[in-house]
Amino acid sequence: MNITPWEVTGAEDGNINYNNVIEQFGCQAFTPELAQKYELNHILFTRGIVFAHRDFIHAIESFTAANKPIYLYTGRGPSSGSMHLGHAVAFLLCKYLQARFKCKLVIQITDDEKYIWKNLSLDETINYGRENAKDIAAFGFDPNLTYIFSNTLSSHLFIRNILTIEKTLTLKDMQKVFGLTESAKVGQIAFPVKQIAPCYATSFPEYLHKDAICLIPSSIDQDPYFRLARDISHKLNGIKPCTIYTYFLPALQGACTKMSASVQETSIYLSDTPAMIKKKIMKYAFSGGQATLEEHRALGGNPDVDVAYQYLKFFMEDDDKLAKLKEGYIKGEILSGEMKKVCIEVLQKFISEFQQRRSEMTDERMSKFYEFV
Amino acid sequence: MNITPWEVTGAEDGNINYNNVIEQFGCQAFTPELAQKYELNHILFTRGIVFAHRDFIHAIESFTAANKPIYLYTGRGPSSGSMHLGHAVAFLLCKYLQARFKCKLVIQITDDEKYIWKNLSLDETINYGRENAKDIAAFGFDPNLTYIFSNTLSSHLFIRNILTIEKTLTLKDMQKVFGLTESAKVGQIAFPVKQIAPCYATSFPEYLHKDAICLIPSSIDQDPYFRLARDISHKLNGIKPCTIYTYFLPALQGACTKMSASVQETSIYLSDTPAMIKKKIMKYAFSGGQATLEEHRALGGNPDVDVAYQYLKFFMEDDDKLAKLKEGYIKGEILSGEMKKVCIEVLQKFISEFQQRRSEMTDERMSKFYEFV
Repeated sequence: MNITPWEVTGAEDGNINYNNVIEQFGCQAFTPELAQKYELNHILFTRGIVFAHRDFIHAIESFTAANKPIYLYTGRGPSSGSMHLGHAVAFLLCKYLQARFKCKLVIQITDDEKYIWKNLSLDETINYGRENAKDIAAFGFDPNLTYIFSNTLSSHLFIRNILTIEKTLTLKDMQKVFGLTESAKVGQIAFPVKQIAPCYATSFPEYLHKDAICLIPSSIDQDPYFRLARDISHKLNGIKPCTIYTYFLPALQGACTKMSASVQETSIYLSDTPAMIKKKIMKYAFSGGQATLEEHRALGGNPDVDVAYQYLKFFMEDDDKLAKLKEGYIKGEILSGEMKKVCIEVLQKFISEFQQRRSEMTDERMSKFYEFV
Repeated sequence: MNITPWEVTGAEDGNINYNNVIEQFGCQAFTPELAQKYELNHILFTRGIVFAHRDFIHAIESFTAANKPIYLYTGRGPSSGSMHLGHAVAFLLCKYLQARFKCKLVIQITDDEKYIWKNLSLDETINYGRENAKDIAAFGFDPNLTYIFSNTLSSHLFIRNILTIEKTLTLKDMQKVFGLTESAKVGQIAFPVKQIAPCYATSFPEYLHKDAICLIPSSIDQDPYFRLARDISHKLNGIKPCTIYTYFLPALQGACTKMSASVQETSIYLSDTPAMIKKKIMKYAFSGGQATLEEHRALGGNPDVDVAYQYLKFFMEDDDKLAKLKEGYIKGEILSGEMKKVCIEVLQKFISEFQQRRSEMTDERMSKFYEFV
């Protein structure tokens, strides 16, 4: 198993053992019981998809008991113009948490990172970033509480913290955390500092309260950045950022792998048509059902590896319906085709509503997200 | 002998052998004969103080024969609020060359570098930079042809070339040229890219003609940056920058060492009063004279190691007077005290005229240097 910001591969059987990840990364487990205790009633919490965290409980309690401000920080690496369902997860969490804590959200578009790592021109990654920002805004964020920025165009706004971190971290620190060798590009050594800086409210003194606690919804592969940010926070007179980590949304081919933008057939894009969604689910979504109808009726299916069911876990809001689908599938009463049909309907609805909002994201509307308000 | 951007130490005898430097760095020699041939009639050229270069002849010939535009690039690391006479040399060259080639000049204030390397706060180096910029402007640059910028405040203006260089250079490249180890700060690895970027006219597309050849007057210790800039210019669709290198202005204590801002008694500052100049020269300037008056009259003095004479070589404009001083000194007709007296007068005049112009550098006048015009 190898989980880094640049690569996610499962163990020998292709699967990601999330309990091992918690142990390996040294973070804390998050459970549906904690979600209930702290009144986090979004399905990503109640269904255990948020599975790990660092100091999240501390952030909630500081907010609730001591009225400490919170801000959210997340990001997007614009390696292509279209985002897929896997990318939606962190933004759905942000939207829920922004409402839950009535807090500001800063979103970093790492067009510099993708230019450095990928075979793309800078204009390409900047333009992808602009398109991605429209996708992000289309999740329904309040422009009065949301600041979206491109590293290439705007990271000078937090140059002070960038330089402070550059004075704090050594090459050895970077090599230990990111495993960079002497063939690494200078930009690959310099970039992480830019992802770390927004973990401190002091990076945006005109936008954020200096005592605001940073809460980062993210997939677990980004943890190395935030671990480092927590390690050095005292050197920046900053507050340790808190994180919450979700499971990877599975690729179509298997329940325990990560959806990836680089292989078209593994992913459902936020720009896909209803017909494309239907075709991809029907043709590619790995089934947890049995080989024949008779066997399925007799033995039942396995929802834990059934991709259609897994997608429903992320995107179907009705708990009762989901529970009935699971139960019926296990008993063999619900067939794989039926599970896929429900999945297609749910995703078609989610994506068509998304596309409706996306179509309204004019340059004029977007401009409000690019400036502090 | 060790010459790096961060440290200059002579050989075992304390001296810097400039012929060895040319060979070691792989650059070309520059001579008074070349100065005459190309009508470079400033004393820094005619007296051989400009002793080495890279492709300078090519730049002059392109300018003269093919009418190619030239721009000048130099810099200042603001490690303190006051600059000394040694810092004046490159700026005097820039002033002469700006008039000679009727060209633009960009001046980088590396406040980021000094923050990273020194035990200084960022506000300190930014403020030192602002003060140093006034000193620089007081050399008499035309604000319509001169752009002074702080890296901390303005390097985002050339972020595109910074990222391109960061994608081009590897950690190995940096270690080879700058000898950085794993204990190096990330900022120490990231900084050189910022000094390299202005070597290409494309870094300032709104200010410089894209085909303009970059000419860098500098002390030789900065050569590693520009060597690297020349090596990778093709990857930036850029023109190889050309350089000219001067001898170090000697410290008061010795003719073949470098004046350094960190030790007060070795340097004459541009802010020194006439009395301070007099006292420093009289008390500290290493003499090439003999131990007693009788010996001096009999054996004569050595102008090559006499610091007062060396300063006159840099700052006394009258060739005839300088030649007579040298001749008389060698013959023992002119005493060390007399040489020092002339030196004091020349420096007092140079510095008091400088201070007069410096006093006129209001924030309003300075603002013209900080923007493209």
